[in-house]
Amino acid sequence: MEELYYVETQYYTFAHPPNELILESGEKLGPITLAYETYGELDKNKSNAILILHALSGDAHVAGYHKGDRKPGWWDNMVGPGKAFDTNKYFVICSNVIGGCKGSTGPSSINPATGKPYGLDFPVITIKDMVNAQRYLIDYLGIEKLLCVAGGSMGGMQVLQWTVSYPERVRSAIPIATASRNKAMQIAFNEVGRQAIMSDPNWNRGDYYDKTPPNTGLAIARMVGHITYLSEESMEQKFGRRLRQKEKYGYDFSIDFEVESYLHYQGLSFTQRFDANSYLYITKAIDYFDLANGYGSLFEAFSNSTHIKFLVISFSSDWLYPPSQSKEIVRALEANGIDVTYREIESSYGHDAFLLEAEEQTRIISSFLKYVYEEIK
Amino acid sequence: MEELYYVETQYYTFAHPPNELILESGEKLGPITLAYETYGELDKNKSNAILILHALSGDAHVAGYHKGDRKPGWWDNMVGPGKAFDTNKYFVICSNVIGGCKGSTGPSSINPATGKPYGLDFPVITIKDMVNAQRYLIDYLGIEKLLCVAGGSMGGMQVLQWTVSYPERVRSAIPIATASRNKAMQIAFNEVGRQAIMSDPNWNRGDYYDKTPPNTGLAIARMVGHITYLSEESMEQKFGRRLRQKEKYGYDFSIDFEVESYLHYQGLSFTQRFDANSYLYITKAIDYFDLANGYGSLFEAFSNSTHIKFLVISFSSDWLYPPSQSKEIVRALEANGIDVTYREIESSYGHDAFLLEAEEQTRIISSFLKYVYEEIK
Repeated sequence: MEELYYVETQYYTFAHPPNELILESGEKLGPITLAYETYGELDKNKSNAILILHALSGDAHVAGYHKGDRKPGWWDNMVGPGKAFDTNKYFVICSNVIGGCKGSTGPSSINPATGKPYGLDFPVITIKDMVNAQRYLIDYLGIEKLLCVAGGSMGGMQVLQWTVSYPERVRSAIPIATASRNKAMQIAFNEVGRQAIMSDPNWNRGDYYDKTPPNTGLAIARMVGHITYLSEESMEQKFGRRLRQKEKYGYDFSIDFEVESYLHYQGLSFTQRFDANSYLYITKAIDYFDLANGYGSLFEAFSNSTHIKFLVISFSSDWLYPPSQSKEIVRALEANGIDVTYREIESSYGHDAFLLEAEEQTRIISSFLKYVYEEIK
Repeated sequence: MEELYYVETQYYTFAHPPNELILESGEKLGPITLAYETYGELDKNKSNAILILHALSGDAHVAGYHKGDRKPGWWDNMVGPGKAFDTNKYFVICSNVIGGCKGSTGPSSINPATGKPYGLDFPVITIKDMVNAQRYLIDYLGIEKLLCVAGGSMGGMQVLQWTVSYPERVRSAIPIATASRNKAMQIAFNEVGRQAIMSDPNWNRGDYYDKTPPNTGLAIARMVGHITYLSEESMEQKFGRRLRQKEKYGYDFSIDFEVESYLHYQGLSFTQRFDANSYLYITKAIDYFDLANGYGSLFEAFSNSTHIKFLVISFSSDWLYPPSQSKEIVRALEANGIDVTYREIESSYGHDAFLLEAEEQTRIISSFLKYVYEEIK
């Protein structure tokens, strides 16, 4: 039997003066703590470090087990000894984003100015702000150049932002199931989720940390999210019109169908592990994301990234961040003469495929990393 | 200038004993009133009657103007003199569904047992129940055989149910942008809407008719619905990432993007014209819809409909009721040797296309109706 891989979350509080970050909005945030985990060993040239970025509801715990836990990290099928991100070869870092609720500074953290949780006094952050904060962590870890930055969904947005904000710190990049900008439909779904939270009377304008939190609104937001993470095909295969523990329709408004039960469960369990304000802040960061912002075009945004090797991955049934948006990225990279490999993986899992299609991703990613790593050895 | 076509809503209260309907659930409902409108003249053989069925939020006012109104009925581009459903040739009837809030008996109607609005005491109804009620209206109007039953979305479900429940009363049928059964993803979106309503404290278990209604929940339900009615392409064309009355991001949780403003407006205005309980009842009827229910298969459901001529219409970008579900209907009809024409109309409007693509639908539908009508003249 394979030995369990144990890991602990670590915390880095910015030590550099002035111990704060000037955000894209112009606001200041500080002090800042980042939760992160590392796996494997940094080689003596510090050339084998891979930074993995997580999606909306993710955290620093990308793989392995926390002591006492029965479930491993969120991408354990991809990160570990002998896996796609092979921790026998590479030093893997995963950092929780600012704005989150998994150990990094976010709206549920204590505001040093008041001694109480920030709530809505927390400034609105962007993907660029998340990446700026991570850069200090990478400095702290003494890594001048990352072998690779990789991640799916919002993690992929951070990957792209890294290649544009800090091209000199990145050798290669793997944006997965993502986009260079959030489109109208993606904004629309996020806004419905935010409205559900902010309409919950328990939200109380974000001031609920000593009261009952807005779990009902957060659960509805998560239900909407979950629909967009699946594909029509996978929902049909998984649930179809199967009834939940009944032979016929209930003719009332309780749960009739398996798919309803699934959504209720996903919504409810999410409220046990996520903060509603963080949901607001992180979805807003996603909506604000437009890599071309401040440049004339996406093409120009990549103009200083020409030395970076890209592997862009999308999934055929992902309708939240469809292959067409990955192809937009690929076209802008190619127009810059950048070394880019594009793979659209056939999958019925929808957007969730980046978490589930381990076999095909492992084949593609491990060979890409080998190619990138051998070049510098 | 074209003369405005004025019309008035009429009401039919079942006169036949026992003045009630036994519903699919086994419950009884009565007395029942149906709101309906008619357009054009019934010919002396009573052979030119067309019944139009409406979608979730529709009503009997399919075309023309109510006195004083500035906007016409919901399908005015398709119904009227010289239009697809040509009221110079055909006698058009449109009936509001039971369970609704537009003049037909529904949860906001007075419960004769209590003298107060039904609220949740209103029994859960199905598409079949809606059609059973309409059949009494058609009896009352003295029409033995309808030249055609036609409608989009939930209206299309009623069309299909008519051809199965009362095949002897129907010569032809035009189900548009619809399905023979509601699939998991469609149920999922409806359930999110219902949860948003039922989570609104003002819902008060459906008892709010003398209080503030659950407008916040209903608005969120409508926002979710609206996303599913559009296509990604049409949202991108219509809104993209355009900001609402601002030059740059607001860095707060008020409206930033045009698409957010559109959804807020759609949600809010819906609360002015629709009852939250009706939204619960009608979406439940849609979720329960499975034409094959009680038959071995969809093929067998149509086994008594072999004399009916079908025109099935879908739209390329409709992802709520995609062309694949129309094709399922077509295959089941063809397997019965039924005369069926199928048209998939190229459109970027998504599910809303059935309300917007008047030109192409007019061409197809008017020629189909001509063919059906000439055969019996």
